Amino acid sequence: MAIPYFPKFMGSDKSPMAAGLLIPSSAPLSSPLAPPILTQDELKKIAAYKAVEYVRSGMVLGLGTGSTAKHAVDRIAELLRQGKLKDIVGIPTSKKTYEQAVSLGIPLSDLDSHPVIDLAIDGADEVDPDLNLVKGRGGSLLREKMVECVCKKFIVIVDESKLVEFIGGSGLAMPVEVVPYCWKFTAVRLQSLFEDAGCIAKLRTAGENGEPYVTDNENYIVDLYLEKDIGDLKAASDRILRLAGVVEHGMFLDMATTVIVAGELGLTIKNKQ
Amino acid sequence: MAIPYFPKFMGSDKSPMAAGLLIPSSAPLSSPLAPPILTQDELKKIAAYKAVEYVRSGMVLGLGTGSTAKHAVDRIAELLRQGKLKDIVGIPTSKKTYEQAVSLGIPLSDLDSHPVIDLAIDGADEVDPDLNLVKGRGGSLLREKMVECVCKKFIVIVDESKLVEFIGGSGLAMPVEVVPYCWKFTAVRLQSLFEDAGCIAKLRTAGENGEPYVTDNENYIVDLYLEKDIGDLKAASDRILRLAGVVEHGMFLDMATTVIVAGELGLTIKNKQ
Repeated sequence: MAIPYFPKFMGSDKSPMAAGLLIPSSAPLSSPLAPPILTQDELKKIAAYKAVEYVRSGMVLGLGTGSTAKHAVDRIAELLRQGKLKDIVGIPTSKKTYEQAVSLGIPLSDLDSHPVIDLAIDGADEVDPDLNLVKGRGGSLLREKMVECVCKKFIVIVDESKLVEFIGGSGLAMPVEVVPYCWKFTAVRLQSLFEDAGCIAKLRTAGENGEPYVTDNENYIVDLYLEKDIGDLKAASDRILRLAGVVEHGMFLDMATTVIVAGELGLTIKNKQ
Repeated sequence: MAIPYFPKFMGSDKSPMAAGLLIPSSAPLSSPLAPPILTQDELKKIAAYKAVEYVRSGMVLGLGTGSTAKHAVDRIAELLRQGKLKDIVGIPTSKKTYEQAVSLGIPLSDLDSHPVIDLAIDGADEVDPDLNLVKGRGGSLLREKMVECVCKKFIVIVDESKLVEFIGGSGLAMPVEVVPYCWKFTAVRLQSLFEDAGCIAKLRTAGENGEPYVTDNENYIVDLYLEKDIGDLKAASDRILRLAGVVEHGMFLDMATTVIVAGELGLTIKNKQ
């Protein structure tokens, strides 16, 4: 059941507008029954702010990557500046998040120095009914997985468009990070693994010239497009990982402990059973 | 049962000396019962030459890497020069083998163009009683595994010092290729996977300054030293591959179809049951 945003917003005394959310002037702010019309980015921000309520001073925090996680990193920095949070150590999950966090003055470290993480907050590209995720459409799946698999708590923040019936169900990519050496060979093998699910494998490209997209780890990404449910996800994961040439895949299975979904009708919080 | 090298050498009319093998002058060449004293490199060469007898004209060949495989590549080039082999396409398993093969004039291709390989010949660091292997002490495990997992036939050539009771049983390293990002964190996780087997994980270094060894794929290698048998190898393989940060490991399970072992008493040929 979704928690409506009105009359109070996210448990704070602030209205959504005061909390920095842009509500279109056409939205009927006065009525608690009529929901506002929120953009996708506003929904992402609402989910991100809600997740940051779980952060406590002194925590080691996994800082996610992507357009939703960015709002969480911004909010953590804001609370640090206001003195409402102290002694936070951030572990960024990508070079991009590292740069964002540095620019905001969040103290940072890495997994070598902090191999146990209290809480990570990150977005996802897909969330299935069992809270399994697809991540990495932004290209950062490997470092994200390294950080988020050692979290005591992993909160995933999404707008409702990310909910799917099955992994791959959005029709968008399930990314696989592969070594550049003979990537075509690896792509063909990946595609044939899931032939029965109508899998199409495509190299991710970047820029106008169609050059391969290069990850933070200097690898390539092969995107898998699935027509049908691939069934047992743990078995599928092992089949992918057993292919020499594969570095990691974007299915995050059994990792999320909480998923916060921001939808037009309010926030829904799903906890791992 | 080993096939003795004398009086005939490897099915050819040549003596070992005529075949390019250096027999110490102290070796009793005249007696078929008294074996010669052969160096480890001579044994490697004998195994390599035997393996090349399986090569036929027109084959796509996986060319291995390391001190034993080097002899096989040399021998293939020799037979090409002599016109005894024709229309060979070699798929090198490392940059080093690529350079060797180019210098010898062997026509080369890659897995993208030739995704099916007729025969691969390569060395190994360990061979267990079920013909499972450890490879990669020379640093080339990933490309080797990519090539050798799509071979119709995979002949492994070793001297008898490589035979072990269990994987890790030589006391030497079982290598794991990892991404450089937070490699210490990955090494600690690898070590704790096999704590019960007394596992010690060490970063492979190169040069005098102890800089990390860098693979052909720009990754690092964490060497695992195992005191005891780790048991179910396929389960162990999956546990390693499931660690985000691991690219590939050096256990080649259920891949070798034939192992040729050169020992002081002769050649032994083991075929996969």
